[in-house]
Amino acid sequence: MQKSKKPIDSLTVMTNIVLPNETNSLRNLFGGELLARMDRAGAISATKHSEKRVVTASVNHVSFDNPIPEGGIVVVEAKVSRAFSTSMEVYVDVWEDDPINQRKIHTNSGIYTFVAIDENGKPTKVPELEPETELEIERFAAAKRRKELSLILSGKMKPTDSIELKKLFLGE
Amino acid sequence: MQKSKKPIDSLTVMTNIVLPNETNSLRNLFGGELLARMDRAGAISATKHSEKRVVTASVNHVSFDNPIPEGGIVVVEAKVSRAFSTSMEVYVDVWEDDPINQRKIHTNSGIYTFVAIDENGKPTKVPELEPETELEIERFAAAKRRKELSLILSGKMKPTDSIELKKLFLGE
Amino acid sequence: MQKSKKPIDSLTVMTNIVLPNETNSLRNLFGGELLARMDRAGAISATKHSEKRVVTASVNHVSFDNPIPEGGIVVVEAKVSRAFSTSMEVYVDVWEDDPINQRKIHTNSGIYTFVAIDENGKPTKVPELEPETELEIERFAAAKRRKELSLILSGKMKPTDSIELKKLFLGE
Amino acid sequence: MQKSKKPIDSLTVMTNIVLPNETNSLRNLFGGELLARMDRAGAISATKHSEKRVVTASVNHVSFDNPIPEGGIVVVEAKVSRAFSTSMEVYVDVWEDDPINQRKIHTNSGIYTFVAIDENGKPTKVPELEPETELEIERFAAAKRRKELSLILSGKMKPTDSIELKKLFLGE
Amino acid sequence: MQKSKKPIDSLTVMTNIVLPNETNSLRNLFGGELLARMDRAGAISATKHSEKRVVTASVNHVSFDNPIPEGGIVVVEAKVSRAFSTSMEVYVDVWEDDPINQRKIHTNSGIYTFVAIDENGKPTKVPELEPETELEIERFAAAKRRKELSLILSGKMKPTDSIELKKLFLGE
Amino acid sequence: MQKSKKPIDSLTVMTNIVLPNETNSLRNLFGGELLARMDRAGAISATKHSEKRVVTASVNHVSFDNPIPEGGIVVVEAKVSRAFSTSMEVYVDVWEDDPINQRKIHTNSGIYTFVAIDENGKPTKVPELEPETELEIERFAAAKRRKELSLILSGKMKPTDSIELKKLFLGE
Repeated sequence: MQKSKKPIDSLTVMTNIVLPNETNSLRNLFGGELLARMDRAGAISATKHSEKRVVTASVNHVSFDNPIPEGGIVVVEAKVSRAFSTSMEVYVDVWEDDPINQRKIHTNSGIYTFVAIDENGKPTKVPELEPETELEIERFAAAKRRKELSLILSGKMKPTDSIELKKLFLGE
Repeated sequence: MQKSKKPIDSLTVMTNIVLPNETNSLRNLFGGELLARMDRAGAISATKHSEKRVVTASVNHVSFDNPIPEGGIVVVEAKVSRAFSTSMEVYVDVWEDDPINQRKIHTNSGIYTFVAIDENGKPTKVPELEPETELEIERFAAAKRRKELSLILSGKMKPTDSIELKKLFLGE
Repeated sequence: MQKSKKPIDSLTVMTNIVLPNETNSLRNLFGGELLARMDRAGAISATKHSEKRVVTASVNHVSFDNPIPEGGIVVVEAKVSRAFSTSMEVYVDVWEDDPINQRKIHTNSGIYTFVAIDENGKPTKVPELEPETELEIERFAAAKRRKELSLILSGKMKPTDSIELKKLFLGE
Repeated sequence: MQKSKKPIDSLTVMTNIVLPNETNSLRNLFGGELLARMDRAGAISATKHSEKRVVTASVNHVSFDNPIPEGGIVVVEAKVSRAFSTSMEVYVDVWEDDPINQRKIHTNSGIYTFVAIDENGKPTKVPELEPETELEIERFAAAKRRKELSLILSGKMKPTDSIELKKLFLGE
Repeated sequence: MQKSKKPIDSLTVMTNIVLPNETNSLRNLFGGELLARMDRAGAISATKHSEKRVVTASVNHVSFDNPIPEGGIVVVEAKVSRAFSTSMEVYVDVWEDDPINQRKIHTNSGIYTFVAIDENGKPTKVPELEPETELEIERFAAAKRRKELSLILSGKMKPTDSIELKKLFLGE
Repeated sequence: MQKSKKPIDSLTVMTNIVLPNETNSLRNLFGGELLARMDRAGAISATKHSEKRVVTASVNHVSFDNPIPEGGIVVVEAKVSRAFSTSMEVYVDVWEDDPINQRKIHTNSGIYTFVAIDENGKPTKVPELEPETELEIERFAAAKRRKELSLILSGKMKPTDSIELKKLFLGE
């Protein structure tokens, strides 16, 4: 296992077309289908970072800003945004690529957490992440706050113990 | 449109079997496939509440606590947990039902937001929700906090304006 | 194994949406796709009753009364209607639920027979069924006649040995 | 429209492989998946006979005699067995073809009824059927008894009006 | 293993309907989906000839002459066109069958090569092929030229060693 | 329409996992499934180059060198290799990416031809291609020979008129 890795090492690109079965009654991609694609791209990305099998631990937040029509080309890009002891936060961005009208629209993004698993199905250590670009550094920092928030929401941390989030809500 | 509805009015039960294609390398249901099923059950539930077509606006949080094996029976239950002006929060619970070993295990739950859409694809009013059971009342109250948190995370509300969340983090 | 069970113990509800791939050239759900869903709901129901793995033994009769359009919400409900030594008759009812137009239409029903299987793949005993409601009692009685009819059609019983059916055709 | 057609004119052969998703926990083809394939082959066969679009009206009887394993080659053969005014009975036979072990096993058969539909979705006349082989003639005759039985079971004919079936049960 | 077999012994017919998911933005069958169906029919055909498991070695040429619309009936017919030591060339023809308009159109054909595999996954001998009809004899002869061409294209034969092809290009 | 484009402009990356349904009896990816994925990636690539809708015209050659196991990560990369008047040759390369064993294996490549289509479904002009890298230049040159060969095989050019190929077979 390498000591640390860069986000670019786990970059995973999944391009595909929206099929009729994946659309709702408005003929746009079902939110749920997109969630599944994002999970799959994220899992491959986390496998590249950890060099281990991984399982989805949680979906932290996904919003759907622009619909993608039937027949549209969907580009899902996943990169590890922060590594913790045995888990990894993966940031997944989605675009609709429309070469015919020469447009590429950012439709939404989502944040997933995966856990690396050893041969016995137990959580296992993963390499650290060294962010490089400005965006990667920003997402790396935010991942810490999201981790704390997640621990609070699941009752594993007391809100009053969260220094990062306390600051945020106190406006200091 | 009715003035208000009860959570039971939107109850949607989706029972099915985990197929081989839906499993990861550990032979358990892919997180992403479960996300898609939960979205679909949630969308049907929101359609029942609003009596309108709906689209997924966001996934607020889903955690995966227990894996569900290939061939397992998955029961997805969705109920509207709070209605806002044109959007609805839907709480989706998932169980693995294992009649052969006489077990029914709560494997995870997730929170989705859907928006009701009129004939022109524009957001449209939905009935209010009147929670009945203790759990429904609790989820109804928590939905307000989640809504504020979501507005903060998307930059549409300043953290310091959130009375509910400020109290939480200040420990008052 | 319990000595007997009630129909409600095996109730299985499978709600889902009709996808484009499941429709014929009239844009309605293919009969065959519905048969497959009904079989799957029926198999889960029989598993709940028997607490064993089950295999489909036969489809006794299914008629298609009302078409279900693409995008429609299909509700399949299965309950064991009678238990024999190692087999179970399961009654499967199907509705189209259309909350937008506030209609719920009974589209068809079907009768399936499943056999419970032990670890060696051999038929194994199942609990008896105690029907409760009027409809359950009626279907329980009719199941006996269908069983006789099925034995006659497969050449395992002589028509003249069937007291129940003889009465029916003689009009006595 | 031709005045009459032969069973061979509507012969439809659908060969395919059993995929993992189509198997139950015993790794054999799900009954329901086979029902769907048989329906599809039957619908094509009825389209060939009627030269019209068709919809499934009912499944009269299907029994499952031999399981077909994952990876097995399934051959579904459908032929119209009798034409009525606007409906057609289609007899569907299924084999497992196993060239590696040089075996071809008849695993089951089923009887489906389809209705021909005109441009307005209304039932429309179909050509008569002239059976040729001994088996075709036998099935053609039996189709009449099944039709009567079906009318009785759906309450559209009184059992005592059925000359064919009365004879059968009286043993005359 | 038989010493030789005829093309008719490996005939495989795969009839099915074009589903919405299998169509491109012009509502015609995707080329790729047709390639996959042809491969599957070809693999079954090669299994019948060799009585062994087979794997696809190459696709030699497929052209798409006529599009097949959504809902159309596709008939794929595969027959072994020549057997080499452990490999088989399979010729796959595709028709659109349109009984409603009483047309059957040859839409395209393709040539696939499969290798027979023994229990250890190693290539294994296959029976010879004895072509019978004029078309079968013609395809049998052409298969030799295609084999040479394939060896040249993959760098396993020098172009100048190919007697058959040299003649063709020299116009002798 | 731009006057010319570079191969990198049409680069399309499609990463995904091999699902159980896509595997043959050796638990490796079916050749046909890979052909379909390659076609889809190729079609997206040709759409990017032409900024028009495209249809598959032919598959020129695909060989399968290394099998890809169930659960494996498949990376399909497509780039236009030469543009003709209204058609484009797309070169599609496939790798199995195995981060757990730190291997990335080139499993096969294929050559597809797509035609650009205008609003009326008629072939329409596409931009020229300017290859940049050594490999792109090599494939660009070979595309001409393949085009000639394809014209000869379909009977649209006489072998003796092909200067390029004649040289090849004469060894001059």
